[in-house]
Amino acid sequence: MQTNPNLDELFPTAIVNINSKLYRASEAKISIFDRGFLYGDSIYETFPVRERIPLFLEDHIKRLLNSAELLAMPLVFMPEDIIKEMQKTIKASTVDDQYLRIIITRGESSIGLTPNSDLQNNLVIISKDLPENPSWMYEKGVSLFVSSVQRNDPKATDPNAKSGNYLNNVMAHIEAKKKNFYDAVMVNKEGHVAEGTTFNVWMIKDGVIKTPPQSAGLLMGITRSKVIEVIQNSTDFQFVEENFTAQEFENADEAFITSSLRSVVPISHINNSELTNGFGPMTAKINEGYLKLVQNYLRENTL
Amino acid sequence: MQTNPNLDELFPTAIVNINSKLYRASEAKISIFDRGFLYGDSIYETFPVRERIPLFLEDHIKRLLNSAELLAMPLVFMPEDIIKEMQKTIKASTVDDQYLRIIITRGESSIGLTPNSDLQNNLVIISKDLPENPSWMYEKGVSLFVSSVQRNDPKATDPNAKSGNYLNNVMAHIEAKKKNFYDAVMVNKEGHVAEGTTFNVWMIKDGVIKTPPQSAGLLMGITRSKVIEVIQNSTDFQFVEENFTAQEFENADEAFITSSLRSVVPISHINNSELTNGFGPMTAKINEGYLKLVQNYLRENTL
Repeated sequence: MQTNPNLDELFPTAIVNINSKLYRASEAKISIFDRGFLYGDSIYETFPVRERIPLFLEDHIKRLLNSAELLAMPLVFMPEDIIKEMQKTIKASTVDDQYLRIIITRGESSIGLTPNSDLQNNLVIISKDLPENPSWMYEKGVSLFVSSVQRNDPKATDPNAKSGNYLNNVMAHIEAKKKNFYDAVMVNKEGHVAEGTTFNVWMIKDGVIKTPPQSAGLLMGITRSKVIEVIQNSTDFQFVEENFTAQEFENADEAFITSSLRSVVPISHINNSELTNGFGPMTAKINEGYLKLVQNYLRENTL
Repeated sequence: MQTNPNLDELFPTAIVNINSKLYRASEAKISIFDRGFLYGDSIYETFPVRERIPLFLEDHIKRLLNSAELLAMPLVFMPEDIIKEMQKTIKASTVDDQYLRIIITRGESSIGLTPNSDLQNNLVIISKDLPENPSWMYEKGVSLFVSSVQRNDPKATDPNAKSGNYLNNVMAHIEAKKKNFYDAVMVNKEGHVAEGTTFNVWMIKDGVIKTPPQSAGLLMGITRSKVIEVIQNSTDFQFVEENFTAQEFENADEAFITSSLRSVVPISHINNSELTNGFGPMTAKINEGYLKLVQNYLRENTL
């Protein structure tokens, strides 16, 4: 069996759990007959672990099960099994703050689209050290390019299933990087903003906070739902889930992205349009509220 | 390293070439950090090998390179390298007639959408015995269900890039199987027939042969192009690349599918509509012409 020693240099703290056995990065391998490899026929979740506490775990497990349902993927694991393997992986790590990725594939198959009836899922859990997000992201904000790559249509490939079919987003991301933007925001076939490649997007105009509704074709972000909670528990904000175009987005007073691994990040530029330099006043308040939710969760939960 | 001995029972004749080393099925593994596994960020081709001669090889290599270009995927291999590895794999097999699958991934990566600049593709070639297609397929024809899953839009995820993002087709296929059809045909957002899950589709009405144009959102099949060659080299046929709806498709006089691994197969049913029982007269002529092309190719080419 070939191993790639570079992976151990790239991920020195990585622990990979494959079907309950732990491996270091270079030895973590999956069958090339796995449908995750052949067809991207897999579901996943990523989230931060702080002081060995997985953040908003229940929400991520719930969404993982929802992705399985949307893909008609039978699961041989119970949620408790997944959590048990996750705990084992987190405990085996040498670091307290971890990046965690849970992947479940439909299993190894005879080649051909029909899943064998006796298919057994493969469960892969990756733990590695959690990289600090660079401080400039929060101090300056990030720049977004409105991609020429349209977001997948829910009638074709539902963005709300968090799956191993990620080329739609990869293509948008590569395009944005080529144009020297931080990342891309994607628009649906109606011309409405859907979401970023790995994050939800928000705009504030004349005191009203907006984020696209699920019907725009997007993943229902966990951080998105927490930020809605923050907004709705305060009398400071006016909020609406509503479609907006890329042009409206560019003309926002403030705008931000939300993601499990980056929390709330201000948007400094959309295409050539300049927004705020770092957090605008309302985004700052929302961020404060979100960080409080995170602190409360970490205080109240232990593995 | 875990191995799955069942895979050797499932694929007793399989030889898997991973970056120039040969493995049997149970030992053929890829890093879970490979972008093919994480994102379906891979391209592939499948085709039959007859008497150790890969059928229409040049066309498949050309399309593989085109898929790479559509996905902005740099290749560290030259076409000659891929062919050399393929030949090595074909020679190592114990069987003369083989199913071949060539997969190239963008490589192993730090996790995150941005491909590392020093990314090295992984090249995986699977050879196994070529299953005989069941004779009923040709004697009776196959039944197709018009899927409720829309074909991916070329503006979002281009069906003409043959990639590891195959969930769109997997979902349509699972739906059709559940309804006891052989497979599914997919329609685009304009309501035009695009293609099957793993094959192109054709209809014949009032003596005119039709197949959807590339703009309908489909993979430009190799067998599709060979059948067009057959049709255009004869004075027997009237042919047009033209959009048609599912309803027009159901009302065809004859209809058939084309695929590298199945050649020309008549369609017996589309939804509840009965077409021909086995080959209709024109489909039979087209099939005859195609099989001649295959025989000529195999006679004129040796490895």
